[in-house]
Amino acid sequence: MHLIHGGDVFSLAEKLGCDDKKIIDFSVNINPLGLAPSVRTALAQNLDLAVQYPDPLCRKLTEAISDHYGLLKESILCGNGAADLIFRLVYVCKPKRALILAPTFAEYALAMEQVGCEVVAYNLKENNNFNIQEDFLEMLTPDLDMMWLCNPNNPTGQLTSRTFLIKVLEKCETFNIKLIVDECFMDFVETPEKYSLLAELGNYKCLVILKAFTKFYAMAGLRLGYGCFSDLELKKAVQQAAQPWSVSGIAQLAGIVALNDDEYAKETKALIRREYDYIQEHLTRLGFYCYPSAADYILFKSPIKGLKEMLMEKGILIRHCGNYAGLTDLHYRIGIKSHEQNQLLIEALEQLKY
Amino acid sequence: MHLIHGGDVFSLAEKLGCDDKKIIDFSVNINPLGLAPSVRTALAQNLDLAVQYPDPLCRKLTEAISDHYGLLKESILCGNGAADLIFRLVYVCKPKRALILAPTFAEYALAMEQVGCEVVAYNLKENNNFNIQEDFLEMLTPDLDMMWLCNPNNPTGQLTSRTFLIKVLEKCETFNIKLIVDECFMDFVETPEKYSLLAELGNYKCLVILKAFTKFYAMAGLRLGYGCFSDLELKKAVQQAAQPWSVSGIAQLAGIVALNDDEYAKETKALIRREYDYIQEHLTRLGFYCYPSAADYILFKSPIKGLKEMLMEKGILIRHCGNYAGLTDLHYRIGIKSHEQNQLLIEALEQLKY
Repeated sequence: MHLIHGGDVFSLAEKLGCDDKKIIDFSVNINPLGLAPSVRTALAQNLDLAVQYPDPLCRKLTEAISDHYGLLKESILCGNGAADLIFRLVYVCKPKRALILAPTFAEYALAMEQVGCEVVAYNLKENNNFNIQEDFLEMLTPDLDMMWLCNPNNPTGQLTSRTFLIKVLEKCETFNIKLIVDECFMDFVETPEKYSLLAELGNYKCLVILKAFTKFYAMAGLRLGYGCFSDLELKKAVQQAAQPWSVSGIAQLAGIVALNDDEYAKETKALIRREYDYIQEHLTRLGFYCYPSAADYILFKSPIKGLKEMLMEKGILIRHCGNYAGLTDLHYRIGIKSHEQNQLLIEALEQLKY
Repeated sequence: MHLIHGGDVFSLAEKLGCDDKKIIDFSVNINPLGLAPSVRTALAQNLDLAVQYPDPLCRKLTEAISDHYGLLKESILCGNGAADLIFRLVYVCKPKRALILAPTFAEYALAMEQVGCEVVAYNLKENNNFNIQEDFLEMLTPDLDMMWLCNPNNPTGQLTSRTFLIKVLEKCETFNIKLIVDECFMDFVETPEKYSLLAELGNYKCLVILKAFTKFYAMAGLRLGYGCFSDLELKKAVQQAAQPWSVSGIAQLAGIVALNDDEYAKETKALIRREYDYIQEHLTRLGFYCYPSAADYILFKSPIKGLKEMLMEKGILIRHCGNYAGLTDLHYRIGIKSHEQNQLLIEALEQLKY
């Protein structure tokens, strides 16, 4: 099992011999507001959805997504989290050579390992805060079958502009490279229209966009994500590359209710921006370098190693980023949490003796 | 999308222009008791599981399954329903030639279509109630990579004895054929020790057993199934052939609580046997031929076609079996439901004019 991600409070709880609920988990990037009260109520009132087979076509959910983002219903395919669709896309496209960013989310490469794909990386540079530069375009060559781009990127939090991405799209379309853009954190961005490619769906056949309810709607435990396809033949193939009932009935309902909760979305954005400023200010004061982030997490560089282990003793879990290509043992990522929890983190860091 | 299964109340509701909750759905094989009260309470009290990432290793659930069935923890791999594991097994094993029963559950062949596998069928014969016969052993030849066997079989309800299956296992082991035995309905069987291969895990490397919470524990909408592997290398490969978070946190909890509810299991078995007798008696009285079944559904043969459509007008959905290889337009399957609902079905059939 690849236990390389954040969120593994279970292993830490096992190690500390405590309940996993006692651990403050900064290693994941989940909306600190937790489940929207509207979603919680809907789930509590509809537990019978656990019994019957879910709608394999996710009809009502697809309609809700289509309405919310102004997308064609036909372009949307829901899955058991966006990660489910990553693997299905790879099984269907069977890429032989693919390009990813480094560092980026690990599942793209892990999925492609399953089909023996050669993975090439574009190395993001620390000296420009891991932002994609113009030279990226030179990496797009006709021998590529697939390209994965996470926007904003995980774990760096960096955005790539729509203007630049159109150039990427043009090259991908010409060279027949499938461009999979992971916009799982785009809902946190203040002006998504400057960065999202949703409006380009239908204009470029090579484009697939992945989105999830996991982070913004705090549903990591429910599993709900979706892909938006320009190429409806590809969508159909990805649909058939798994069982018909990938998405649970409970997740379908949760997604529908969440998308209608404007208040929750507004509150989330305000909270994240406020706490982002708070954490960034204090981490900087304590001698950590924070890379600018548009998402609900912050990548930072520590002057010393072993920060994760020191915090673990205090029941705090952060994401050590040494296993990301292009990052080092000095890099850590934290998800932004409630003010109270963020304060506990800052206090814990203040108390560290180094 | 392959909408070939039962349970599609959503399409019928769309057609009738009514709420899908108004339809009495006999087309699925789900425990009529619905969610165990213990599971319902646990879910209602733990909706926060929707928020955090689920344990990718399903540690507590795996332990509960291991305790309940006396299995090695290491042999168990949980998935997003057993259907999830069907596809993952196929992607990992990439069979070139495989044997299935006809008729049987459709997903085995659909999954194998994804890897271009040639599928050969052993045709079950109506004149012996679709029971597997001794000549089946001759079908096991060295050119096969995989064999799928559903026990009790869906949609026929027929059991294959452990004694006979040991002969199958011996041949599969000799010829290096992966034997996937789907025991998703075995919990309904009165003397499972005479039929289940769970006790053979570890004795035959070729053996994989699939089980699910879907039917017996009425959790089709939650998605929870698992595979039991003799070959731990194969288990690891199947584990890596998908995202780490296939099983939702809510499904993991539901599974643990369900396995500890002996009262629910006892009540379920009693109800199914009682209602099985009731339906069988009345269907026979009305001129339908019922094939004997060990599961929570009954396959029957109607003297006339079009039964599904006639019942649909009364808001009752049954499973037309004409699209199963080896069955005809006269074959239908019904899931056993509550006595009240079973009575409604019998009454509706009595009122039909033909």
